[in-house]
Amino acid sequence: MTRPSGLQAEDSRRTLSRLFAPIQAGLADAERIFQDELRSRFPFVQALVDHCGDYQGKRLRPALVLLTGGACGRIAAAHPVLAAVVEMIHTATLVHDDVLDESMVRRHAATVNAEWGNESAVMLGDYLFSHSYHLAASLDSTLACRWIGKATHEVCEGEMQQIHHRGNLDLDEASYFQIIAGKTAALTAVSCRLGAHYAGADEAVVEAMESYGDHIGMAFQIADDVLDIWGDERATGKSLGTDLEKQKLTLPIIRLLEIGEPAAVAEARSLLQEARADSRRRLQPLLEESGALDYAWAKARWHVERAVAALDVAAPSPYKDILAEMAEYVLRRSS
Amino acid sequence: MTRPSGLQAEDSRRTLSRLFAPIQAGLADAERIFQDELRSRFPFVQALVDHCGDYQGKRLRPALVLLTGGACGRIAAAHPVLAAVVEMIHTATLVHDDVLDESMVRRHAATVNAEWGNESAVMLGDYLFSHSYHLAASLDSTLACRWIGKATHEVCEGEMQQIHHRGNLDLDEASYFQIIAGKTAALTAVSCRLGAHYAGADEAVVEAMESYGDHIGMAFQIADDVLDIWGDERATGKSLGTDLEKQKLTLPIIRLLEIGEPAAVAEARSLLQEARADSRRRLQPLLEESGALDYAWAKARWHVERAVAALDVAAPSPYKDILAEMAEYVLRRSS
Repeated sequence: MTRPSGLQAEDSRRTLSRLFAPIQAGLADAERIFQDELRSRFPFVQALVDHCGDYQGKRLRPALVLLTGGACGRIAAAHPVLAAVVEMIHTATLVHDDVLDESMVRRHAATVNAEWGNESAVMLGDYLFSHSYHLAASLDSTLACRWIGKATHEVCEGEMQQIHHRGNLDLDEASYFQIIAGKTAALTAVSCRLGAHYAGADEAVVEAMESYGDHIGMAFQIADDVLDIWGDERATGKSLGTDLEKQKLTLPIIRLLEIGEPAAVAEARSLLQEARADSRRRLQPLLEESGALDYAWAKARWHVERAVAALDVAAPSPYKDILAEMAEYVLRRSS
Repeated sequence: MTRPSGLQAEDSRRTLSRLFAPIQAGLADAERIFQDELRSRFPFVQALVDHCGDYQGKRLRPALVLLTGGACGRIAAAHPVLAAVVEMIHTATLVHDDVLDESMVRRHAATVNAEWGNESAVMLGDYLFSHSYHLAASLDSTLACRWIGKATHEVCEGEMQQIHHRGNLDLDEASYFQIIAGKTAALTAVSCRLGAHYAGADEAVVEAMESYGDHIGMAFQIADDVLDIWGDERATGKSLGTDLEKQKLTLPIIRLLEIGEPAAVAEARSLLQEARADSRRRLQPLLEESGALDYAWAKARWHVERAVAALDVAAPSPYKDILAEMAEYVLRRSS
C-alpha cells in the first residue's frame, strides 16, 4: 500500500495489543459481557453468535470507550458494558454489510451470509442490534440508549446514501464525506462521547472527545477505502475491491475523476462502469500518477491532526497518549 | 377460507375501525410521533420511510398498547410514544421478513425489496430498529428499552429457528409453537405489558395483560399461517403461499404429516419437497379431509379463550370489552 513517505505499514495486531495493554482488563470484561448477553438456548442461534465472536476484530470502538473514560477521569462499571454495546452494534453492521456487499470472507473466516445464507445473516444482525439496546438499557439512565439509537440511525442513513449513490460517477466529495460521517464516524464519535460522559466529564470535554471520535472515524474510513484498492487480502483478512465491484465511489476515485487528465479520467470511468476483475490493479497507477492517492492520504492526515488537537482539553495521562497514538496508527495499519 | 361453522369472514378494516374508535386520538398521536421520529434530511431515506408509512397496517400492536392502558387505569402521555415504538419495531420486522421471504407485495403495495432492492430494505429495517430504541429512550426510564430489547431478540430467535427448520418435514408442534411464540407473540405480549405498566397497573395485572398479549399473538399467527394456505391475495394484500414455497412448516401441515392417512401424507410430503406452484391448491383438500385444518383452528380458538380469560383481572370498562372482542376478531378476519 502506498503511503506518504516516512510511514510504514505496521502489524496491526501487535501495535494494538501494545496500545491496549492498560485497558486489557476492561476489554476482557467487555468481551465476557458481550458473550453473556448474546447467549441463546437455541443451538443454531448460538452457533451464529459464536461465529461472530470468532471475527475478533480490532476492538477499536470498545477501546475508545475505555480509553476516553480513562482520559477523562476514571473507568467506571458502566464502561465495559458500553464497550460491549458499541462492539455489538458494530458487529451487527458488519454482518449486514457483508450481506449488502455479498462478501464471502471477513477476518479470515467465512461471512455469516456465505456460511448460513443471507436470511440468517439479516436476522443475526437484528438479534445483535436488539441485544445491544437491551444491554444499554441495563444502565442507570436512558442516555446511552438515546445516544446509541441516534448514532445507529446515522450509520443507517450513511449506508442508505451510499446505496443510493452507487454507480453515480458524479458523486462529489461533500456527499462522500456525508456518507462516511454516518456509516463510520457516528459510531466512533458516540463511543468517545459515552466514554467521556460516564467518566463524569463536563459537557465541553464530552464534546471534544466526541469530536476526537468523529475525526478518527473519518480518517479510519478514508484509510479503509484506500486499503480496499491497495490492501493485501491476506493482511486485511477480508474480500477487497468490493467498493469497485459495487461501484461505490471513494475519495481517491472521486478526486481522480475530478482533477485527472482527460485520458486517465476516461479510462477510469470505463473501468468503473464495467467493474472488471482487474479494475483494481488498473486503477492503481492512474490514482497514483494523478496525485489522487496523495490527496486522499492528506485528507486522512488532516482528520488525524484534528483528532489529536481535540485531545487538548484532557489532562495529561497515559490514556490520552494512547488516544493520540491510536489516531496516528489509523494511517499506519496494514489491516 | 374455511372456518369453524358459525364464523364468517369479516372485512378487517371495517371491524377494526369500529373497535378502535375510542382510541382514535391515541392512534393518531402515535402515527404523528412515528412520522416525526423517522424524518430524514436525505430525500432517498425519506422516500423509503414514506413507502413504509403507506403500508398502513392493522395497527394491532399500537392498539394493544393503548387499549391495555385504558383497561388498566388510564392512557398516559407515554402510551402513544410506546404505540409508535412497537409499530416501528413491527414495521422493521416486516421489511426484513419481506427480504427473507423474497415477497413482492405487502399491503397492496410493492415491498421495499421489490422496489429498491434487498440492500435498501436491510438498511431501512435497521433504520427503523434504531429509531424505535431512540424513541423508547425518550421515556423516563430504561424499562421500555429493556423490555422491547428482550421482546425483539425473542422475535429474532424465533425467525432464526424458523430459518433453521426450513425444509425440515419432521418439525414437531412444540418447535412450531416455540417459533411463533418468538416471532409473533413476543411483540404483542410486550405491547400489552407496556400498556398495563405505563397505566400504573400492579405487577399481577401487568403479567395478566402480557399473557393476554401472548395468547392473542399465538392465535393471530396460527390464523395467519392458515390464511397463507386458504386466504385471498386480494383481501390480504400480500403474497400468499410463501410458507409453502419457502418450505416453512405450519400447524395444519405439521398435523397432517403427523396424523394423516399414509397416502395423504406421502402426497403432502412430495408437494412440500417440490414446492410446486400448485402445492397450495393441492394441499387444501388433504388438510381439510384429514381434520388438520380443524385442529389448527381449535388450537387458535384455545389461545383466544386463554386471552379472554386473562382479562379477568381488569375492572369492567369499554377498553376491556374491546380487548375481548379483538381476541375473537383474530379468527374472523379476512386479512
